[in-house]
Amino acid sequence: MDRMEYKQRLGRLQQKMQAQHIDGFVVTQNVDLYYLTGSMQTGYLIVPAEGEPLFLVRRSVVRAQQEASAVVEPLGSFRTFGERVAAAFPQLARGAKGEGRPSIRLAAEFDVLPVQLYQRLQHVMPHAEWVDGSIIIRETRMIKSSRELACIREAARVIDAAFEEALERLQPGMTELEVMAGIEYFIRRQGHIGTMRMRGYNQEVITGMLGAGAAAAEPTYFDGPAGGQGLGPAVPQSVSRRPIGRDEPILMDIGCCIEGYVIDQTRTVVIGNLAEDLAAAYETSERIIRSVESMLTPGTSCEQMYADSLQMAHEAGLGDHYMGYGDDQVKFLGHGIGLEIDELPVLARGFRYPLEPGMVIAIEPKFTFPQRGVVGIENSYAVTDSGFEKLTVSREGLIRL
Amino acid sequence: MDRMEYKQRLGRLQQKMQAQHIDGFVVTQNVDLYYLTGSMQTGYLIVPAEGEPLFLVRRSVVRAQQEASAVVEPLGSFRTFGERVAAAFPQLARGAKGEGRPSIRLAAEFDVLPVQLYQRLQHVMPHAEWVDGSIIIRETRMIKSSRELACIREAARVIDAAFEEALERLQPGMTELEVMAGIEYFIRRQGHIGTMRMRGYNQEVITGMLGAGAAAAEPTYFDGPAGGQGLGPAVPQSVSRRPIGRDEPILMDIGCCIEGYVIDQTRTVVIGNLAEDLAAAYETSERIIRSVESMLTPGTSCEQMYADSLQMAHEAGLGDHYMGYGDDQVKFLGHGIGLEIDELPVLARGFRYPLEPGMVIAIEPKFTFPQRGVVGIENSYAVTDSGFEKLTVSREGLIRL
Repeated sequence: MDRMEYKQRLGRLQQKMQAQHIDGFVVTQNVDLYYLTGSMQTGYLIVPAEGEPLFLVRRSVVRAQQEASAVVEPLGSFRTFGERVAAAFPQLARGAKGEGRPSIRLAAEFDVLPVQLYQRLQHVMPHAEWVDGSIIIRETRMIKSSRELACIREAARVIDAAFEEALERLQPGMTELEVMAGIEYFIRRQGHIGTMRMRGYNQEVITGMLGAGAAAAEPTYFDGPAGGQGLGPAVPQSVSRRPIGRDEPILMDIGCCIEGYVIDQTRTVVIGNLAEDLAAAYETSERIIRSVESMLTPGTSCEQMYADSLQMAHEAGLGDHYMGYGDDQVKFLGHGIGLEIDELPVLARGFRYPLEPGMVIAIEPKFTFPQRGVVGIENSYAVTDSGFEKLTVSREGLIRL
Repeated sequence: MDRMEYKQRLGRLQQKMQAQHIDGFVVTQNVDLYYLTGSMQTGYLIVPAEGEPLFLVRRSVVRAQQEASAVVEPLGSFRTFGERVAAAFPQLARGAKGEGRPSIRLAAEFDVLPVQLYQRLQHVMPHAEWVDGSIIIRETRMIKSSRELACIREAARVIDAAFEEALERLQPGMTELEVMAGIEYFIRRQGHIGTMRMRGYNQEVITGMLGAGAAAAEPTYFDGPAGGQGLGPAVPQSVSRRPIGRDEPILMDIGCCIEGYVIDQTRTVVIGNLAEDLAAAYETSERIIRSVESMLTPGTSCEQMYADSLQMAHEAGLGDHYMGYGDDQVKFLGHGIGLEIDELPVLARGFRYPLEPGMVIAIEPKFTFPQRGVVGIENSYAVTDSGFEKLTVSREGLIRL
């Protein structure tokens, strides 16, 4: 891939490092490594505040040399890590700033870096002051390039085809698991990488969630509005073995990952007829997403979008059902997507980011009715210079079979 | 499930805590929480060195109360975490040991706990000395109960059925991805949970690895003897879109996860005939596994098994090809399996554990031939009082189609 693109990504990160007086960034996470180098091989990417980075690779060096845009060198013994870094970047060596000056500030991804590895890094670079660089690396990744958008568009095309194929197969009495297995089989043959990456500790995505009736409304640990019943306590989210019935809402919140990039969409389906109040709640979710679309333009505050949507839910008399029910509600309306399913920005209180061109956001107003099901819609959007591009291509509206 | 089983698991952990003078364990990882409570909901399990634990749950409290054997309470505000722990466990409160005595020692899983969360824990319990409890929790999980063995046996049955079904479908010209997609579709409908969990930082398992000829022999970051080419740099392991040819080795290293428990097995298949030297290498892998089986009995040292197998590989003139090729070799013969694919014990240098009844180990002697492929076998075994039980049920031998 184009080396210029990696140069731009690194340049954006370096700008943020300079603004925070960070002298170097030791990048360790597979997805961040891939984003910044084009390679996911295991190692340490040392990014100085200015100049070229160095990728010290543990395994596979050969593969990293083929894949990475950055200079690759074998890591060798980890005990010599400090000397290797000092040799390549004298400005990061002990005492580089001179006697009595502040210490070298190094960043790492504290949101994913395990304590064990952190302590080893502290041990081999004891002179450094370590700071949390997770936000600046996530902010760098928040703005997508046209190449990244192209991958997400392709994922959107694949999941739409899988969705339509699933609708053709869907029959009452099929289990959620059967329907999802078919979707997974379809997307896999189209190049779904077999997993969807999620950054949050302990969080997993099992190709999304497909849930009907009461099973969809089961509360769960998953950090989303509708986690689903799951196959049991060992996977307490997503599909169950419950047969799908007539006249109950079927929430199909599915995604796939093509060339590393995920898409995320939700549609509500019913075989037969939906109770009037549930159908009305579905209509409210569409009204909310239309209203949110009207705000989807550079400059809008992320938290304002959530606040306004919550207000609309309350006005519709559905405040208790919005984004989960009761104690199990989540407090957001949407989330960034890209290489991971839980990227920035988050449309939630406390996220004051103004929208910027290049952000890609899954927006998912949903309503949960305990014992009855979940209804809602989710589209993924790219923010453009003048508004938005809807990346999701699946047909909207309550789908009645 | 049987509360007695959880009591025993906790009891084993508490014994190890006492031996290391650890006063309390704050368990945070989803898999460890599931192992110790029966629930994977998000929260903190506080295990005192003696007595009953307390599960402070963030989400979903309702679900955790249904699933967990431990007492569940809502976490509430994390700022009050220290007070909550002190109220439930006065022996863990600040100053509990008296003036001038050593501080409270708390353990956490440093191998998986992200630095951010660790720092938050340190902040709310500033009086504690935090130590790495990963090894003792992994050692506790290393010995499987009869219930756990039953889950692994079921996973072994499912993967064998998937394997036989794949052999029936296998035709020259099919891509690795197509064959694997079919296996995944099969196991998913049988209850595969949709993911295989791996503890190592940055490591992922994509239902194992199915690779033919040169693609199988591509080096990769994955911490195993044969990672595979993958679909591209965003998933640089497992299956590729390369069509499978005649007369080349097809390595089928596959697994599934049933009720949370994984199985891991490898078979070597060829459509047509395999070159004599590759067939001979396959025979060597079977000779190694037979020899290792003869050592599979309580008391044998894990590192000795690896050393002996390496010796056999060298004697067969295949030392350079053993467990990867050249710089990309891995230095182990096998690994524990259970809720995760990378459990203890590891059959490698430095692992002095003597085998014990209840250990479950995937043993995988393999030989890599650059540009030509990988051959080998992998079975999973339980160590019993008097020897072993082979959990893998698939037919052995080089399979010629």
